[in-house]
Amino acid sequence: MTTGYFIDLVGTSVFAISGALSALSKKMYHDLFGIFFIGFLTATGGGTLRDVVMGAYPIAWIRDPNYLIVIMGSVGVAVLGRRWWLGKLRNALLFFDTLGIGIYTIFGMQKALSLDVNHWAAILLGMISALFGGVLRDTLVNDLPLIFDRQIYATACLAGAIIYLIGHTLELDPTLNFLLSAGSITLIRLLAIRKGWSLPRIDNQ
Amino acid sequence: MTTGYFIDLVGTSVFAISGALSALSKKMYHDLFGIFFIGFLTATGGGTLRDVVMGAYPIAWIRDPNYLIVIMGSVGVAVLGRRWWLGKLRNALLFFDTLGIGIYTIFGMQKALSLDVNHWAAILLGMISALFGGVLRDTLVNDLPLIFDRQIYATACLAGAIIYLIGHTLELDPTLNFLLSAGSITLIRLLAIRKGWSLPRIDNQ
Amino acid sequence: MTTGYFIDLVGTSVFAISGALSALSKKMYHDLFGIFFIGFLTATGGGTLRDVVMGAYPIAWIRDPNYLIVIMGSVGVAVLGRRWWLGKLRNALLFFDTLGIGIYTIFGMQKALSLDVNHWAAILLGMISALFGGVLRDTLVNDLPLIFDRQIYATACLAGAIIYLIGHTLELDPTLNFLLSAGSITLIRLLAIRKGWSLPRIDNQ
Repeated sequence: MTTGYFIDLVGTSVFAISGALSALSKKMYHDLFGIFFIGFLTATGGGTLRDVVMGAYPIAWIRDPNYLIVIMGSVGVAVLGRRWWLGKLRNALLFFDTLGIGIYTIFGMQKALSLDVNHWAAILLGMISALFGGVLRDTLVNDLPLIFDRQIYATACLAGAIIYLIGHTLELDPTLNFLLSAGSITLIRLLAIRKGWSLPRIDNQ
Repeated sequence: MTTGYFIDLVGTSVFAISGALSALSKKMYHDLFGIFFIGFLTATGGGTLRDVVMGAYPIAWIRDPNYLIVIMGSVGVAVLGRRWWLGKLRNALLFFDTLGIGIYTIFGMQKALSLDVNHWAAILLGMISALFGGVLRDTLVNDLPLIFDRQIYATACLAGAIIYLIGHTLELDPTLNFLLSAGSITLIRLLAIRKGWSLPRIDNQ
Repeated sequence: MTTGYFIDLVGTSVFAISGALSALSKKMYHDLFGIFFIGFLTATGGGTLRDVVMGAYPIAWIRDPNYLIVIMGSVGVAVLGRRWWLGKLRNALLFFDTLGIGIYTIFGMQKALSLDVNHWAAILLGMISALFGGVLRDTLVNDLPLIFDRQIYATACLAGAIIYLIGHTLELDPTLNFLLSAGSITLIRLLAIRKGWSLPRIDNQ
């Protein structure tokens, strides 16, 4: 099992849990299938859109059953542990989502760069990998998408993507670069929530 | 004309009618173009998403004008007969939608399996074929998507998909297997509406 | 630089400005990144969906950094000039959107016809190029999509697409045909706004 494959499965699991917890927090999806479906879309949405836009076929979960098995297991963990998560639901959700966006932004960029995408587009594709699954999740459960959160969110992904690109240009070791840039995203986002950081508003007057 | 092609055109027609009737039931889309457009998205949405995700190009309606001609005809039938449908609109909608999800779930699975997709993904792709067009339709006309109906809906597709897969593994005759599994979906859904069947809720407390 | 490339970049710029102005008119997206993101989706959404559905890889903005550079410049122009636009915002928005749909409908059709798509599908793909970016923009900023405007909008694109197809069949010079049909779309739409034109309603009674 290569590192990239392992990372992709971890990201899939983390996002599937965040989707299942989100569905569990709403009345709308209280049957097992609905909860699995939200978990599945959260986990696969970003990577699928990224690969479709790049024409990078076959899509991982279509070729390889392990993705769907990991999603089913992760949704099961979320469902069985729901009483434990309960009460700390919002924090658990933010934790898994924050891990997920760090992993997927950089994983998505690595994939894009390996396919000779231009650097500007690689940044956007990394961000799409990280953010689109969450947008689907939040839209389907009728939450305001986290991407519109006043606290720095997409901007954390952007910062991490730029850090990775600099490391990539400096020919840093890919694994080190991954840890550094994905870690930055998670750290920036956590600090932003804690400290209430946000981008300056652009005023119309 | 092969059986698969014929089945695909019937599914297209049935979904186009369900989309047009849905649009006719709302004030928003009372011009002919708007009604055609909803019919078109309902009829092609699921199959297009399925084929794009599999990279199965070219998409049917792009290669072959018959799909769009069938859609135009079906929308015409819905519009000309609207006074007749009126009063029984909700029943007519449910009837065409229920036929459509049976046909498209199994047709989508057959296509996925013929392209060497793994079995788990084939089930999901069959369900996406069947359900995504209706999600577009219901979202665009501002109905709560049928997929969130309390009565068994997506689960009926799931059951039919599993029946088809078992028949496929047992090397049942494809046409017989099609009739059996697509028929099960339609039957389960109709019984669920009639009897008020729903999946058990997963309680948070 | 070929004419087609130049036209595509002009359309990209015009739609990016319309997206940025739309975002600036709402409280939700008052940071620079949010405004860029709406501009990016408005500018690339329609063309990306068109090319993905046709399997016409690689997508322009992924292969060629100039698209993203043009979008960044256009969003910058919208942001820096926002006080100037202010007060005439709705008119500026309509102006850029109207230019954009004319350019993209015909550019999208030209691309589809060059890839041997059937004529019915080419008309729809032209309209998708023109309209999908705006639907994303309006949905994300919570405006009623312009596509549902009572005044003729999608129908103007349809009329222009048919004019182009007639010219194409008559082997008219492509550039002349482009100007004629894209100009018709913009003209029909402007007249429809001014005169309050709309399609006849289809009555249920």
